[in-house]
Formats: sequence, structure tokens, C-alpha cells
Amino acid sequence: MSDFAIAVDLGGTNLRIAAISTDGRLLEKVTLSTKVDLSPDHVVGEMCDAIQHLCGRYRDGGALIGAGIGIPGIIDLEAGVVRKSANLPNWSGYPVREAIERRLGTRICMDNDAKLAALGEQWLGAARGVDSMAMITLGTGIGGAIVLDGKIFHGMNGMAGEFGHITIEPDGVRCGCGNRGCAERYASATGLVRMAREAIDSGEAPELAKAANCGEFSAKSIYDLAIQGDKGAQLIFQRFGRALGMMLADIVNVLNLNMYVIGGGVVSAWDAFAPTMFEELHERSVVYAATVPEDLSGKKVGAAHNMDASTRKKTIVARAILGSDAGLYGGARLAAL
Amino acid sequence: MSDFAIAVDLGGTNLRIAAISTDGRLLEKVTLSTKVDLSPDHVVGEMCDAIQHLCGRYRDGGALIGAGIGIPGIIDLEAGVVRKSANLPNWSGYPVREAIERRLGTRICMDNDAKLAALGEQWLGAARGVDSMAMITLGTGIGGAIVLDGKIFHGMNGMAGEFGHITIEPDGVRCGCGNRGCAERYASATGLVRMAREAIDSGEAPELAKAANCGEFSAKSIYDLAIQGDKGAQLIFQRFGRALGMMLADIVNVLNLNMYVIGGGVVSAWDAFAPTMFEELHERSVVYAATVPEDLSGKKVGAAHNMDASTRKKTIVARAILGSDAGLYGGARLAAL
Repeated sequence: MSDFAIAVDLGGTNLRIAAISTDGRLLEKVTLSTKVDLSPDHVVGEMCDAIQHLCGRYRDGGALIGAGIGIPGIIDLEAGVVRKSANLPNWSGYPVREAIERRLGTRICMDNDAKLAALGEQWLGAARGVDSMAMITLGTGIGGAIVLDGKIFHGMNGMAGEFGHITIEPDGVRCGCGNRGCAERYASATGLVRMAREAIDSGEAPELAKAANCGEFSAKSIYDLAIQGDKGAQLIFQRFGRALGMMLADIVNVLNLNMYVIGGGVVSAWDAFAPTMFEELHERSVVYAATVPEDLSGKKVGAAHNMDASTRKKTIVARAILGSDAGLYGGARLAAL
Repeated sequence: MSDFAIAVDLGGTNLRIAAISTDGRLLEKVTLSTKVDLSPDHVVGEMCDAIQHLCGRYRDGGALIGAGIGIPGIIDLEAGVVRKSANLPNWSGYPVREAIERRLGTRICMDNDAKLAALGEQWLGAARGVDSMAMITLGTGIGGAIVLDGKIFHGMNGMAGEFGHITIEPDGVRCGCGNRGCAERYASATGLVRMAREAIDSGEAPELAKAANCGEFSAKSIYDLAIQGDKGAQLIFQRFGRALGMMLADIVNVLNLNMYVIGGGVVSAWDAFAPTMFEELHERSVVYAATVPEDLSGKKVGAAHNMDASTRKKTIVARAILGSDAGLYGGARLAAL
């Protein structure tokens, strides 16, 4: 018997709704597909039906303390309106908070999905027990979020944590933002595939070239070759790690936080990119060099239960551990704060 | 008649002690020379004599609310000990807080001098009325400080705001920190002189070469030539501005604050470097581009009294206005917080 929160992760593919107890147990999770082609009102209707269904099932066991909803893209938190979302193109300008609150008849909390994932990892994941941390989510692009004293730090307009647009190569590849050499052009799944295709075109990577000719070519294909020992594929991940390390070095120099959690799909290739990431971070960040944990590889440190005397006042860079549920835990946490 | 705080700015050259009223008036300032060759105990003795003298003069008019002391270098704030100070080489390991408190018989506050300058600018200077801001101090190196909700943000070990070691040229000039291409190798007084000497050596800057042969050659010499219209000197300032803009772009992308105040000696050459600084910042920061004030040049915006509807939720980059007194105001503010 315990009080619970409702958490929603509204993605471009899946719409997931969960009941999570206030002590952090996932009581139940419902996964629907997000009907991106239908109107936002329709999707919100399905979301609210599922919320009410879950509330009905757990209400007898404890009180509902609130609902926290994660949405991809740029959200105007004051107005409760989606400004722009690559994954939900129909939702630009949609007053999502009002639509949900009208249907549910109660107040809800909302935030960007990457910010909620960070809050989830801080509450129950890799940064459990750490008050202030940042999270870097490696996906199609790079998502970023900063948590200070257990709360999401938004900056002036909710744009704090735009880590992916830190410049790592002043004359590098053009980015959609107008800049050249943004970190996310190198240290994302998209960047990985682009760098692999460039290596193929220059004739440096014959095995990658074969893989690229056999149907779908993704970050996963490159990783599969890398773990089989292909030098060409390994080199791509080393470049990825260097780019990530350069970006991290700037973040660590600015923020000097206790922990930086790396999440997102590409993080499953950790072993392939982490060594060069740590090397670059150590060389380029004076703050990291002054606070590096004894185990540089980051293999032993980082998990919540390892936050002891040896990692206190040290800069820990670690893998996320909650996977795609991080945002749900973060939504529940947001509702509780 | 007003309550007052004592503020101290302990520099490598001057030791300045001031009485500042709680509403921000500088009641009196005493400037001594810092006897860096004598023992820290001796310097602290002179400091405390001056503090007691000022306290005696203003005690009848109001209550002393506390003392805030700014010290250059790396300070262990928990222990109250100077860890390392380039300007005060004898002070490494010196328990400065205990030494002062023992003499004065009262608790004091202390912080790094660049952090206090930021707090001063936030309280009474360029960022008056702005809760969250960062300050970049351009001197021999680059000092940095972040103020969130009116309080200095230290990060985990007091190292937040190491802006000068953000990488702006991955294969650039070697920095004392071990990295290559740190911002402060380009966007500081030292960087300016280094870039000028390189231009002289390559034969690109005949007027600069003449100036370098006539005695002391400093940032000021280069500026004097730049305002006289010398292209070689102007080019150096443009490169300085680009480097500063690149560094700022990364900071703005990470923090998304309302205001960034640029201070330090070199800021008097604002007109020579600000145009390229703003150009680079606008091109390289997606957050700045989304929040740029109407007047890109930053000439009309930035001063405290201009923080109106047109600058709310905009990213303002402005010159510091308190000069070398910023740290004293910050010290008084720290004592009051």
C-alpha cells in the first residue's frame, strides 16, 4: 500500500504511461503507440484514458500525488505549450498542459523528456545519492540536462544544457543550427554513421563498406563490426569518444558537478568509445584533472552504491542505468517535488 | 546612519579595505600595498588593523553586519585555507580564515576574488536586477564566476566557472593546464600580446613591430595602435573577439543565463573586439541565436537600468561597470547574504 504518481513519456513512436510509487517502484506501465498522424487532441485523449485507468487500479492502495509528463522538443513551461518538436510535428503551438488538465480535471507537471530522464537517473539511477549532476543523452542528436540540488535547472528559457551544440571543431561539419563543428555532428548515432560513411568513401574502411552494402546501416552495424575487431569500425568509435570527451571537458570546466551520466541508445557501445572519451576529458579539462577518481576507466565508479568516500568530491562520468524508463521515473519525481 | 559591512580585496599588489553600507554606498576605502614578501601573518595583521580602524569610524552610525574577504587563487572554502595563489606565492596552505577570525574575534566570509567581483556586478553593477548571471574577467588569464539566484555557484569543489580553459582550438597553443587551445591563450591580455608578437614575427604587422621595439609592449600598446587605425593591431583584437565569442557560445549553450558580464582590464578595448565577439557568439550559440536582443551590438543594452521588457528573457552580454571596486561590493554583499 503506497502513494503513487502517474508518469507519462510521450515519444514520437511510443506513448508510455506508468504508475510509480513514491518510494520509486514501477507499479505498472502501459505502452501505446503514439498516433503522430492524428490530432494532438486524439493522442491526449488516449493518454488521459490510460491515466484514469491506472489511477482507478491503484487509488485504493494509496493517494495519487500528481502526474508528470515528458514531451520531446522545446516546451514553453510557463505557458504549457509545445513550441517545436521534431518527433511530434503536429504539436507545434499545441497547448498541451491545458488540454490534459481539462480532461483530467487536475493540475499536472510537465517538462522536456531529456530533462525528466536526468531527474530519473538522479533520483533512482546512476546518480542516486548525488544532488547535482548533468545528463548527456546520445541519440539521433545529443540531449542535455542539468540537475542542481535535486531539481531540474532550466536556465532563463528552458534551454540550459544544450550540450550538443558546443563547438568541438571550429571549422568542422556544418550543423543544422547554423554553426560548424557542433558536438552532436560527431558524438551521436547520426554522427557515427556520417563518420563511417566518410571513412567508406575514402576507402579506409573496407569492412564497413561491405556492411553498408548489406541493407540497413546504423550505429549498431558499426558497433557489431567494432566488437568483432574491425579496425575501421573501432577507429570511428574512437573518434566518437574523442568528440564526446571534448564536449564533456567544456561542460565539466563550466559546471564542476559531482556526476555526469551518459545515456541514450549509443551508450551500449560504451566499451568502444569510453577509453578515448576519458583520455580526451582528462587532457582537456583542468577541473576533471584536479578531481579525477582513482579508477580513470570509470568502470568501477559511477553506480549509485559506489558513491562513497573515494568518489566524494570527485568527478564521476558513468553510464545511465535506467534505460528508457528514466523519463518515467523522472516524471514521477517531478510530480512529487 | 546605516548598517555597514567590511569588504577586503587582497590582491597581489594592493590590499584594499572598505566600509560599505547595506544599501550599497562605499563609505570609505583604504588602500595599502600588499607586502607579498613578508609573511601572511604580517599582511593579515595590517589588514585587521585597517578593518578595526574602519569599524571604529562607522560603528556609531550603524551596526557592523559582517566582513567579506576576496582572495586571488584557489581557496578551500570549507577549510578556509589558500590552496594555491599565483599572486600570493607565500600563502599556499595558509589558514587565512582562522588567522583573521582569531585577530578580529568574529566570524568572517571569504571567497575567490573573481567570484566576489561577479557578486558585486550582480548586486550593484551591470547585472543589477538580474538574478542569475556569469562574469568573465579578462586579465592575465580569464577569471570566471557564476551567480545563480543571487548567490555564487561554486560547483562541487569551488571550480565552477573555469571558462578560460574551455577549448576553442583543438590543436591550438599549449596551455599551462596541459590542454591545447584553451580560450585564455587567446582571449586574455597575455593572449593578445602573444598573438601580436606572432604577427610581428611573421612580418604581418610593421606598426606593431615598431611599438614592440619602443620599450614596454602590452595590451595597451596594441589598443593604442588599433584606435589609431592600424590594421595589424585591429586584426589582433578581431582574433581576440572571435576567441572570446567562441568561449561565450559554449557557456551560453550550457547555462542559458540572462546576462554575461565582461570585466577586467582588457574590457576598455571593448569597441575593438566586441563586434567579432558578437558575430561569433551569434553564429556558434543556438541558445544565443534564439534569445538575441534586438540590438546585436550590445551597445544600448546591458546596463542595469536597461533591463526592461525588451531585454527580459534575452541573453545580454555587457561590459562590467564597477571596475576594480566590484570585488569590494561583492565582499560586502557576501557578508550580508
